[in-house]
Amino acid sequence: MRSKKEKLVSHLPDVAGNGLVDRRALLGRGMVFAGAAAAGVGSSLTGAAAEPLAVDPWSMEPGAPIPPYGVPAKYESKVVRTLTNPKSEPRTSQARTPHHLLDGTITPSGLHYEPSHSGVPDIDPEQHRLLIHGLVRQPLVFSLEDLSRYPRVSRIAFIECAGNSGALYTAQAQPLNVQAIHGLLSCSDWTGVKLSALLDEAGIDPRAKWVLAEGADASGMSRSFPLAKALDDAMVCLYQNGEQVRPSNGYPLRLLLPGFEGNMNVKWLRRLKLVDAPIMTKDETSKYTILLKEDKAWQFVFPIEVKSIITRPSPGLTLKGPGFYEISGLAWSGNGRIRQVEVSADGGQSFAPAVLQEPVLPKALTRFRAAWQWSGGPAVLQSRATDETGMVQPSRAQFVAERGLRGNFHYNAIASWRIDQAGEATNVFA
Amino acid sequence: MRSKKEKLVSHLPDVAGNGLVDRRALLGRGMVFAGAAAAGVGSSLTGAAAEPLAVDPWSMEPGAPIPPYGVPAKYESKVVRTLTNPKSEPRTSQARTPHHLLDGTITPSGLHYEPSHSGVPDIDPEQHRLLIHGLVRQPLVFSLEDLSRYPRVSRIAFIECAGNSGALYTAQAQPLNVQAIHGLLSCSDWTGVKLSALLDEAGIDPRAKWVLAEGADASGMSRSFPLAKALDDAMVCLYQNGEQVRPSNGYPLRLLLPGFEGNMNVKWLRRLKLVDAPIMTKDETSKYTILLKEDKAWQFVFPIEVKSIITRPSPGLTLKGPGFYEISGLAWSGNGRIRQVEVSADGGQSFAPAVLQEPVLPKALTRFRAAWQWSGGPAVLQSRATDETGMVQPSRAQFVAERGLRGNFHYNAIASWRIDQAGEATNVFA
Repeated sequence: MRSKKEKLVSHLPDVAGNGLVDRRALLGRGMVFAGAAAAGVGSSLTGAAAEPLAVDPWSMEPGAPIPPYGVPAKYESKVVRTLTNPKSEPRTSQARTPHHLLDGTITPSGLHYEPSHSGVPDIDPEQHRLLIHGLVRQPLVFSLEDLSRYPRVSRIAFIECAGNSGALYTAQAQPLNVQAIHGLLSCSDWTGVKLSALLDEAGIDPRAKWVLAEGADASGMSRSFPLAKALDDAMVCLYQNGEQVRPSNGYPLRLLLPGFEGNMNVKWLRRLKLVDAPIMTKDETSKYTILLKEDKAWQFVFPIEVKSIITRPSPGLTLKGPGFYEISGLAWSGNGRIRQVEVSADGGQSFAPAVLQEPVLPKALTRFRAAWQWSGGPAVLQSRATDETGMVQPSRAQFVAERGLRGNFHYNAIASWRIDQAGEATNVFA
Repeated sequence: MRSKKEKLVSHLPDVAGNGLVDRRALLGRGMVFAGAAAAGVGSSLTGAAAEPLAVDPWSMEPGAPIPPYGVPAKYESKVVRTLTNPKSEPRTSQARTPHHLLDGTITPSGLHYEPSHSGVPDIDPEQHRLLIHGLVRQPLVFSLEDLSRYPRVSRIAFIECAGNSGALYTAQAQPLNVQAIHGLLSCSDWTGVKLSALLDEAGIDPRAKWVLAEGADASGMSRSFPLAKALDDAMVCLYQNGEQVRPSNGYPLRLLLPGFEGNMNVKWLRRLKLVDAPIMTKDETSKYTILLKEDKAWQFVFPIEVKSIITRPSPGLTLKGPGFYEISGLAWSGNGRIRQVEVSADGGQSFAPAVLQEPVLPKALTRFRAAWQWSGGPAVLQSRATDETGMVQPSRAQFVAERGLRGNFHYNAIASWRIDQAGEATNVFA
C-alpha cells in the first residue's frame, strides 16, 4: 500500500497563498486526494481484486424493519443541538445547530436552531387561532383549517438569530467551535400563505404603516415590523422541510420575514395587528438594538447583513496530516443573493474565489467550497462574502472600528480559524 | 359572522373548464378565499377587536424544554410512512411517503420512501468500506474517513421507485390514495463525492463501459449502469438533507444516479466494479424490465419519464363546501427540468397552465399550483407535465395503447382524481 503522505499531491496551481489551489481540484480531475488504500497486491486490470472485501456481519442477516418515521443512525448520536437550558428553567433557552457535522444547505428540522423565551408551548392545532386586526377594514380570525384553504408558496430561506456569533464581541477569542459561536443559524424549505393575501382580505387602512406580530408562548414574544415587509415577501408558514412546522420552530404557525433577524420570525403566531407606528414592545426595546461605538445605537435595523462562516475545517475536526482538504462553509445575506465568497488560508493576506453551490437563492444559505493543499504548517482560514447589493463582509478590524465591542447583535465580521501543526483548529481574531 | 358560502367568490376569469381560474388568484389579489371569520361585531378601523382571542392554556404556563433532536408535534402522528412489511419478515418491504399531508418539495428524511429487499442493515461506519475494482488501473478501498477527504457537491434530486404508481396497471381503478399509489417517490438535498473523482483516481481502463453497484444489505442488491452515467452526474452520498444519510436510505453511503429509477441508487453501497457489459444480476433480470404490449419489453431503460401527480385535493382530503381551492402537486422528470405543468378540472377536456414553484431544478421534484373555484358539482382533476426535452406525460389511453397493462414499472400516464358532490376524491381512470 501507498502511504497516505505519498498520495497527498496536488497537480494544480495555487490560486492564493498557503496552499489554496485551483477550483478544478473540486472536480477531481488531475488531483490525487487523500484517502483510498490500494485494494491489494496482485490486482490487475481484469478486475480481480487480490484482497476482496470482508463480508461484514450486517450483510449476512436480515436487517431491521423500516420505521414509520425514520431517525438518524445510532452512530450519529453526537449530531445534536446543544442546549443552554435543558430543563426549561424560567429563562431563555437556546438550541444551536451543529454546522460542523452537517453539509448541504438544508438544515434538518430536528436540528434547526431555536431560541425561546419561555419554553416550547404545547399548542392544540384545533384550538389555535390567528387574529388579524388593528387598522383593517374587517378584523379576521383564522383557524388552521381556514388557512389551509388559501393559496400557498414555498421558499428556501435562512433564519439567523440577531445574537448569532455574539461570542465574538469579546476582546480575546474564546476557545469555541462553530456550533457554539455560529449555531444560531439554520435554513429550511418553508411553505405557507403569503401574508399579503390575508391582509388583502382584511383590508388595509391607509393609516397602517407597521405590523405587530405576537406569539402564543407564555412570554408573548412580540415584535413590530414594517407593513412594506408584510406586503413584500412575508409568509405565514404551516410547513417546514415538507412537513408541518416542528414544535420548537413554531408549530402550528410561524411568521417568516425572509432575511430579517430571527426573533422577528415570530413562532406560535397568534396575532397580527396593523398599527401606524412601532409598538415598542419589551422584546424590541430591551433587546435587539445594535450598539455602536461610544453613545450611538441602531434601532429597527432588521435585515441580517452579509456574512459567511467556514464549517470545515473547524474546531474539533482535526486534520489528519498534510494534503488535500476541502474548505467548506455557508454564506448568506438578508438583502438577497450571495454574489461571491472568497477564501484565505493566510489570515487575509490573499484570497481566492470559492465555488458557490447552485442554486444560489436569495435570503437562503449558500454552500461554498474551495480546494486547499495543506502543507502541514500553520494557517489561518477565513471566508469573505459579498452579496448582490455589493455589500462585503467587513474585516474584524473594520467592524470593531465602527461598532466597538459593547454589543450583542448582528456580528458579521470575517471569522478566522487558526490551524496548528497538529491539524487542530482554533477560534482566533486575525 | 358571514357564512362560509357567501365568501367563496372569485373575482377573476376562468382559464379552463369547471372552475380553473386565473393564476393571479394564487397571489391573493382580488380574491376572497375561504376561511376567516370576522373577529366580531363592533370592530373598527382603530384596531379594537370587539371579540379578543381567548388566551389559551399554553400561553399561561412555561413550555417544554427544547429537545437535542427535535421531532414532529404529537398532533401530527398520522404523518408517517405506510409499511408493507412492518415486522421485517424475509421478503421485500416498502415504506411510502404521505405526499397528501406534505407540502414544499423537500421530503423530510424520516418520511423518505424506502423499499428494501432484506430490511435495514445495522452498519458500523468505522468498519464499512467501499471497494472500486474491475477494469481500473488500481483497485481502491475507501473508508468513510477516506471519503470525507474528497471534494463534495450537493444537489436536490428526486428518487422514484420504478414500481411507483404500479397500482394503476389494472383494468379497474382501485380505491387508493396518493400515498398508496404514488408514495414511492421522494426528494432530498444530497451531498457527497462525485463518482467521477473516485474513478479518476482508480484509473479507468478503456475497455470499461458499465459499472456494477452492490449494496451491503443481506440481499446484496446490485445493478449495472453505464459508465457514462458514472462520469456525468453520479454521486456517492454521505449526507441527506444536511445530515448523515438515514439508515433506511443507505447509511452510511448511498449511490445517487440522478433521474434513474430508484433501486439503481444503491443503498449501503459497498462495491463498484467497472466492467465491459451489464452483469445481468438477479435484480436487473428478475425485475425492472418494462413490459410492452404483446411480446416486447424494454430492458435497461433507466431514466424516469416525465410525470406529475396532484397531491391536494386527493383521496382522504375532503373538500369542505364549494369555493376556492388550491390544486397542488408534484412534477418531475429523469431527463431534466420540468418546463410546464397543465391542470384540468374537467377530466382532460380543457387544461390551464399551473404555476411552477421556483427554483425549478433538473431531476428534482417541482411543486406546481393552480387556482380552482369549485362549484360543488362533479369534477375530474388531472395534471399533465412536460419536461425540457419536450416529452409530455401521456394520457392513460395513450399509455395503455403502447404498453398494455402487463407491466409493473415506469407507469407515468396522467392520473385522475374524481371529486364528487360531497367533496370526496377518488382514484379513477379517465
